[in-house]
Amino acid sequence: MTTMARLETPFVSTLPGRYYYDPAIYEMELERIFSQMWVCVGRADAITGAGAYEVVTVGRESIIVIRGRDDVLRAFLNVCRHRGARLCNEASGKLKGSIQCRYHAWTYGLDGRLIGAPNVLSDEQFERALFGLLPVALEVWEGLIWLNLGDDPASIEDQLNEPIIERFGGYAAFARYDVGNLKVGKRIAYDMQANWKLVLENFMECYHCGPMHPEFCRLLPGYKTGDVSDYVNGEAVSLAENVEAFTITGKASRPPLPGLLQEDLRHYYGFVLQPNVLLNLLHDHVVMHWLIPNGPGRTVIMCDWLFDPQVMARADFDPMDAVEIFDIVNRQDWEVCELTQLSMGSKAYQSGGVYVPEERHIRAFADFVLERVR
Amino acid sequence: MTTMARLETPFVSTLPGRYYYDPAIYEMELERIFSQMWVCVGRADAITGAGAYEVVTVGRESIIVIRGRDDVLRAFLNVCRHRGARLCNEASGKLKGSIQCRYHAWTYGLDGRLIGAPNVLSDEQFERALFGLLPVALEVWEGLIWLNLGDDPASIEDQLNEPIIERFGGYAAFARYDVGNLKVGKRIAYDMQANWKLVLENFMECYHCGPMHPEFCRLLPGYKTGDVSDYVNGEAVSLAENVEAFTITGKASRPPLPGLLQEDLRHYYGFVLQPNVLLNLLHDHVVMHWLIPNGPGRTVIMCDWLFDPQVMARADFDPMDAVEIFDIVNRQDWEVCELTQLSMGSKAYQSGGVYVPEERHIRAFADFVLERVR
Amino acid sequence: MTTMARLETPFVSTLPGRYYYDPAIYEMELERIFSQMWVCVGRADAITGAGAYEVVTVGRESIIVIRGRDDVLRAFLNVCRHRGARLCNEASGKLKGSIQCRYHAWTYGLDGRLIGAPNVLSDEQFERALFGLLPVALEVWEGLIWLNLGDDPASIEDQLNEPIIERFGGYAAFARYDVGNLKVGKRIAYDMQANWKLVLENFMECYHCGPMHPEFCRLLPGYKTGDVSDYVNGEAVSLAENVEAFTITGKASRPPLPGLLQEDLRHYYGFVLQPNVLLNLLHDHVVMHWLIPNGPGRTVIMCDWLFDPQVMARADFDPMDAVEIFDIVNRQDWEVCELTQLSMGSKAYQSGGVYVPEERHIRAFADFVLERVR
Repeated sequence: MTTMARLETPFVSTLPGRYYYDPAIYEMELERIFSQMWVCVGRADAITGAGAYEVVTVGRESIIVIRGRDDVLRAFLNVCRHRGARLCNEASGKLKGSIQCRYHAWTYGLDGRLIGAPNVLSDEQFERALFGLLPVALEVWEGLIWLNLGDDPASIEDQLNEPIIERFGGYAAFARYDVGNLKVGKRIAYDMQANWKLVLENFMECYHCGPMHPEFCRLLPGYKTGDVSDYVNGEAVSLAENVEAFTITGKASRPPLPGLLQEDLRHYYGFVLQPNVLLNLLHDHVVMHWLIPNGPGRTVIMCDWLFDPQVMARADFDPMDAVEIFDIVNRQDWEVCELTQLSMGSKAYQSGGVYVPEERHIRAFADFVLERVR
Repeated sequence: MTTMARLETPFVSTLPGRYYYDPAIYEMELERIFSQMWVCVGRADAITGAGAYEVVTVGRESIIVIRGRDDVLRAFLNVCRHRGARLCNEASGKLKGSIQCRYHAWTYGLDGRLIGAPNVLSDEQFERALFGLLPVALEVWEGLIWLNLGDDPASIEDQLNEPIIERFGGYAAFARYDVGNLKVGKRIAYDMQANWKLVLENFMECYHCGPMHPEFCRLLPGYKTGDVSDYVNGEAVSLAENVEAFTITGKASRPPLPGLLQEDLRHYYGFVLQPNVLLNLLHDHVVMHWLIPNGPGRTVIMCDWLFDPQVMARADFDPMDAVEIFDIVNRQDWEVCELTQLSMGSKAYQSGGVYVPEERHIRAFADFVLERVR
Repeated sequence: MTTMARLETPFVSTLPGRYYYDPAIYEMELERIFSQMWVCVGRADAITGAGAYEVVTVGRESIIVIRGRDDVLRAFLNVCRHRGARLCNEASGKLKGSIQCRYHAWTYGLDGRLIGAPNVLSDEQFERALFGLLPVALEVWEGLIWLNLGDDPASIEDQLNEPIIERFGGYAAFARYDVGNLKVGKRIAYDMQANWKLVLENFMECYHCGPMHPEFCRLLPGYKTGDVSDYVNGEAVSLAENVEAFTITGKASRPPLPGLLQEDLRHYYGFVLQPNVLLNLLHDHVVMHWLIPNGPGRTVIMCDWLFDPQVMARADFDPMDAVEIFDIVNRQDWEVCELTQLSMGSKAYQSGGVYVPEERHIRAFADFVLERVR
């Protein structure tokens, strides 16, 4: 056997196979990555009006994200403080003015305060203030909802500014897309059978684009040929000459996003916001994925297609030409991630695989994981 | 976070969340509670005639409960002493005069003695007496079958008399129902997704009855309002004034059970026989549940509706007005137990929830568990 | 309880129950038996022509068995050396002239050599020779494909000659069947719920044939009555007097296999090649099973019916009269193995069951396991 041979080459190795299936490592990732960092759980504009909520998952926690009467989004552990029943059991909905537990009718305000506990009298020295819903730190950044389960969350800018600046060479080029003011035109949820890290690693390189994504490469031929590697400092791939937009037809059916410059109009930017967001910027829409690890070998991937709300307000708005092309790409990617997951337990992958030169930058992600999970 | 705040209040805490999902704790419960105590597995009157049997589960053991030619009920591990094949693979049935293993035709009497082992000759010094089925201690108490897997079972009265006397202030009030001479009119099996202890704790309080059981509270309004707490010494809730019986219609369709006194006729008694029986006494029928833990987060619940055999013998006997109301209550309870199970792994429940004053007596059950499982 | 009583008898005990369900023991078996010994994975004649392949499982490994341009069968771990994607995802198929990974199009010759890695240039000092598919030792013995995952495989003859010689009293009687030149006429895959060892132990004795296999015993009455025990030195059971062949009808529909002697024509030989093959020799066909452990309580069993290729070439060739009878026997055996699996966790089987005298030879298999797994 020659498993070790790669170490003598200039190639860089991936994480060892066990990082993709070992339940103990997965548990540490939930604890040290998903319960310590800011984790994205969707779009703020998808939760509209007082009492509107979504139930999301971070690590092992079910969390209610709910908009208050004051229009502020808040997040709470989805657990009644009395006997622990799950409070909201639907993925989303709209509550009148309070959150009531089905079990014993303990009732909480939209701000989490306990406002009713039947049969518990005031002379029992019961301080309702101590039994409010347990809050989870929440920030809205560029329209994305981020939660942090840690006891003492760092600032979200510390986490997110660096990858933006590294990718664009500054914040301005990203800011022009004004992602925070776009709205969700279409959402698709995928449930796939691979470790969450395989999905990120897949997204971080386009060495696979030629073999796997013929439709994608027809629109963005730079990913098919030549030296495609890590992009930084605002480098981008451009649309093919005969193509007007990143759509299934290649035709443009929407105006550009309002803030873009002429130089942005034919660019595609793809990049990762660790630990769980994939962003794709196009001239007339944005595609964002956020990952929800669901076991060592299983990941739920939510995908939102975002558009200019002015365009969405038009009678003839139809997102499907943008949705169809990326849905094809998504399914191709999930398929190879699942094929890869199948081998992670093989002795052929005990010490991992190799990154070729144009994938070598992914090693930084492997090191990010190893710093936290050892 | 204010998880710890409850400790400063006069409230009493529940078991920590891990007691409801940790496989190691569940394993200890099977070992130290379900394999050491008398455990109920059904009704003796459901097994009629020589050779009639039921296959039941206690802990991890499959057990045959079978009636002998001498009309005595016996219990045996459902395992052939030769190569271990399961002997009876149906939930119930009637055997002619012996229990025969399908694999090699080893044959046992209804009393468990090995009476045939093909091709094993007498000159081989094979003592059949050593290879009888392994017996399990069995007692019939008030018509209920109780098994004990322990090596040296305590007397069943030691286990059961105390809760009866505590509940009724003596044995006589309970004895009037003559539960041992009732018969099963209807059986429903429920398979639900919650830890067995959540089911007991749910049954032990009616703080949830108002929010969860409108139909139940219409018949027994004492559970809806006022200071409903632990009942002892024969205390009981009474039927609503406009109600004749605990039936889906509120009308009486059966005479009272023969031994009852006038003072019993409008009472409802509910109580627990640890570790796994819930009993509900009404003036014209009895509802009993027995629980079969089926994993840390799963419980099979058997429910029998018992009636006076004289009444059951009538041509127009129909148990459904009694069955329907408690089936509704059952399903409501299983639903909130399942909602509660979902939160047991949350950090919000790491040190448990709280019992309000009218639930505080449940803490004795938590302590019963902790005495055995630590 | 009298569980221990068997130890005082002349009976021999089976393996303790935990050997049939404990995941840690199963893991050791995969490691020390299935990854160290030669393991059968099918028939060489089922893979015909350059590029034809089957994907097989040994232990936890997925392995490609593929025929080269030079007509040689080779085996490789089914894992791309680059990022680990599974290469072949179908159970069998035919490739043109290479094995190409779907993910990044790395391409391997049918001999495993890496022949293409897109975008990896020669000036990067990438030695393709170090990144060939990882080979698995393969031998074809009597037409059966055997793989060995060990680092330093022993000779296959060391493993297989001894059981052949013990069973037939020499190699010649077995050689007359010329199993290596037969061909697969029918294959059935069974997926059953029992530990692999129960299947072997079931096959090693015919004490169960009377109770379980009436159709089988009609054809081979020696298995129904009398002192049927371990057969060695060429001992065999004979067809019933009124029976022409081992077929569902009892009629002969094929000539004898060409090399047989007159004395072979009415014999049935059954025997095991450890760790995972069951062989059944009849005068006009051979039935072989090979087992694929698929978890502590689950086994995939492949069954091939082999015939003389001259006979298979006839227009009216129909294997079904041979297939039907053994398919019945197979299903009867899997059923009792599954019944046995159900009891392995009972305290009744903690120290195992007993072998009666005519099963006592199976103990050698238990000892074979214990030598490797303790």
